[in-house]
Amino acid sequence: MTKHRIVVVGGGFGGIQAVHGLKGAAADITLIDRRNHHLFQPLLYQVATTVLATSEIAWPIRRLYRDRDDVTTLLDEVLDVDTEARLVKLSSGHTVPYDTLILATGARHAYFGRDEWESAAPGLKTLEDATTLRRRILLAFEHAEMAEIIGETEDLDSHLTFAIIGAGPTGVEMAGMIAELAHKVLPKEFRHIDTTRTRVLLIEAGPRVLPAFTEDLSAYARQALEKLGVEVRTGVPVTAITGEGVTVGETFIPCRTVVWAAGVQASPAARWVGAAADRAGRAVVGPDLSVENHPEIFIVGDTAAVTQKNGKPVPGIAPAAKQQGSYVAKVIKARLAGRPAPGPFRYLHQGSLATIGKSAAVIDFGRIKLKGSLAWWIWGLAHIYFLIGTRSRFAVAWSWLWIFLSGQHSARLITQKETLKDES
Amino acid sequence: MTKHRIVVVGGGFGGIQAVHGLKGAAADITLIDRRNHHLFQPLLYQVATTVLATSEIAWPIRRLYRDRDDVTTLLDEVLDVDTEARLVKLSSGHTVPYDTLILATGARHAYFGRDEWESAAPGLKTLEDATTLRRRILLAFEHAEMAEIIGETEDLDSHLTFAIIGAGPTGVEMAGMIAELAHKVLPKEFRHIDTTRTRVLLIEAGPRVLPAFTEDLSAYARQALEKLGVEVRTGVPVTAITGEGVTVGETFIPCRTVVWAAGVQASPAARWVGAAADRAGRAVVGPDLSVENHPEIFIVGDTAAVTQKNGKPVPGIAPAAKQQGSYVAKVIKARLAGRPAPGPFRYLHQGSLATIGKSAAVIDFGRIKLKGSLAWWIWGLAHIYFLIGTRSRFAVAWSWLWIFLSGQHSARLITQKETLKDES
Repeated sequence: MTKHRIVVVGGGFGGIQAVHGLKGAAADITLIDRRNHHLFQPLLYQVATTVLATSEIAWPIRRLYRDRDDVTTLLDEVLDVDTEARLVKLSSGHTVPYDTLILATGARHAYFGRDEWESAAPGLKTLEDATTLRRRILLAFEHAEMAEIIGETEDLDSHLTFAIIGAGPTGVEMAGMIAELAHKVLPKEFRHIDTTRTRVLLIEAGPRVLPAFTEDLSAYARQALEKLGVEVRTGVPVTAITGEGVTVGETFIPCRTVVWAAGVQASPAARWVGAAADRAGRAVVGPDLSVENHPEIFIVGDTAAVTQKNGKPVPGIAPAAKQQGSYVAKVIKARLAGRPAPGPFRYLHQGSLATIGKSAAVIDFGRIKLKGSLAWWIWGLAHIYFLIGTRSRFAVAWSWLWIFLSGQHSARLITQKETLKDES
Repeated sequence: MTKHRIVVVGGGFGGIQAVHGLKGAAADITLIDRRNHHLFQPLLYQVATTVLATSEIAWPIRRLYRDRDDVTTLLDEVLDVDTEARLVKLSSGHTVPYDTLILATGARHAYFGRDEWESAAPGLKTLEDATTLRRRILLAFEHAEMAEIIGETEDLDSHLTFAIIGAGPTGVEMAGMIAELAHKVLPKEFRHIDTTRTRVLLIEAGPRVLPAFTEDLSAYARQALEKLGVEVRTGVPVTAITGEGVTVGETFIPCRTVVWAAGVQASPAARWVGAAADRAGRAVVGPDLSVENHPEIFIVGDTAAVTQKNGKPVPGIAPAAKQQGSYVAKVIKARLAGRPAPGPFRYLHQGSLATIGKSAAVIDFGRIKLKGSLAWWIWGLAHIYFLIGTRSRFAVAWSWLWIFLSGQHSARLITQKETLKDES
């Protein structure tokens, strides 16, 4: 008799946690991802803002399972699922049969139907997104310096203006780090421009920054951002984005570097398996995270629409995906062992964290709320703790310590494209 | 009166050392590079073979001179030099006037007139070259695994065969590291292929590996390579390279991954200033490294053809470029101070070093010759010493220590392109 075959699609937090939880199950597991690495997305903004190196927050997936003989890793992209024949179709032409399928394919940033904004306002989901943003941010200062030298001063302000669209944790963190870069790290390095003249705009259509936090913490975050030199604009939507600037409400702001941190769109997992989807494309799943009429298919993480007991949706954050991955592993293990299934999935919110620059953060643990430098230290330690592998913990701790002591960012590389000309 | 204007083109070892040596000169210095970073090229092969991260061996040039108010950094590409008007022409359209010009623009790999080989056999000079090679090497194993799974076993051998063309230090180092990756790091991570079946070919048209070393050390290096599983082929030229394989002499070897480490071509600096050039395009310079009829123009490093007292050419290695940069700075400082010029440039050969894998190296200090693990430790300490900045020294030391203790490479990221499909 062949073993039960479990296919996991996606090596993000949900998929990795599911494979982890399935250890010891009487099953052959195949993990498929189109990237060769698991990525610690919560710190991706630090790669984009020159604090961390790419390899400090990404790990080869194969490496994670070198000692798990029950796990086979495939580097390939899923194109579709045949739910009748129980086959996953890959872009290589290969098909992988499954008895149980876990889809953990995540989300990409979305432009609310304005896909033409993407080239001027890239988002932040992959390592390439991060190095692309890093290149654009660093080149903006280079363009400004050259504009000053050759006397094209009419372009100067637009090169030295950065707009971040969306004031969730990613937007707040990006705005804070760009402001620090401009106001604290770079000033002594340019001979012609004054980088402290840089404008960083954080634009949010909703009424306040960090809407998932309490009003008190949200107000503190706004203050901390403004102290760093960020101009916060809430309650006005962005109506246009081009390579020349952004239009906020009716006002056009010349601005060459725009970061999109406003919306996400789930992967096409719902379509692959014929499940109903919500507006963001997330698959509607049952109380045990399986798909209607397909108890053998589970969907977890950012690509699943799951509701909490209080009626609110489970947020699209790493701890939620990890809890769902663990839960689904338990359900499958119970089934394989002939034990009764665990009760429905319950999301346990462990807290919300966001940092603002180098020494402020806000943390909402429910009853306990923290802000300021103590929150920043807790945020840093929590993130080091959750990094995979001793080596990364040391490396990130060392990078942060170095920056904390020296004030210097080290991963300030412009890669992929060479000169000012290429980028314009 | 305006200050004397010195323009340095190129932020490699020669250019950086010249700027360093010019500290305190009564001059305004402009350093122009098309990259924003200085690169420690001797360790570039370790990025290509997943040992080090990009930011561990590259530093923003601006950062190096943040405290030197006399130095202005420009990110731009030089297109030409007007030696009459004394102007450097940049790709941005900007022109920079000089009183003294130092060209330190280095070399690229060259294909001896077979430029069509470049796409199949990329070389190793920039960070992008290194991440491209890293991607190709890692994807070769992924392609092999997929070929085994879908039963296209006729492709298997060609995916698991790597050819390195040229057995100088870079070729030897690349071959050793790829063999270690295949034989020691990866075996437990693939469920279908046996990565220890990997063939690594080191192909050299000359009679022996590491021709710049003594015959004894060269023989030792060959032995050490063969112990790691590298097949060394000397005395046969490569006659063809395609995406399907390499032809060595008359023999075609199916092979999907080829690394070019065979030849270099100097930058067009000689052409810019109308200097005579040797076959590799290096500018012929006088005893003080200046250009004939242009005492105000100096050329240093890999783009200069300089002869030693013994009639041999100065080798194209980092210490030679650094010595030339320092020397030229002294000549210029003497001129500006009205002191007599120092004597002609004398190259002092400090030694030749090359590593083979994780615990063998050869060192030729002239009278003292070393091989084996002691040489390897000296090699490692020397390279850490020459890295710029405390942070990089710690980071590289930590990465190496980690690999030494755990046997695991951490910078194993496939970036830039996503899936198997993209690459084929």
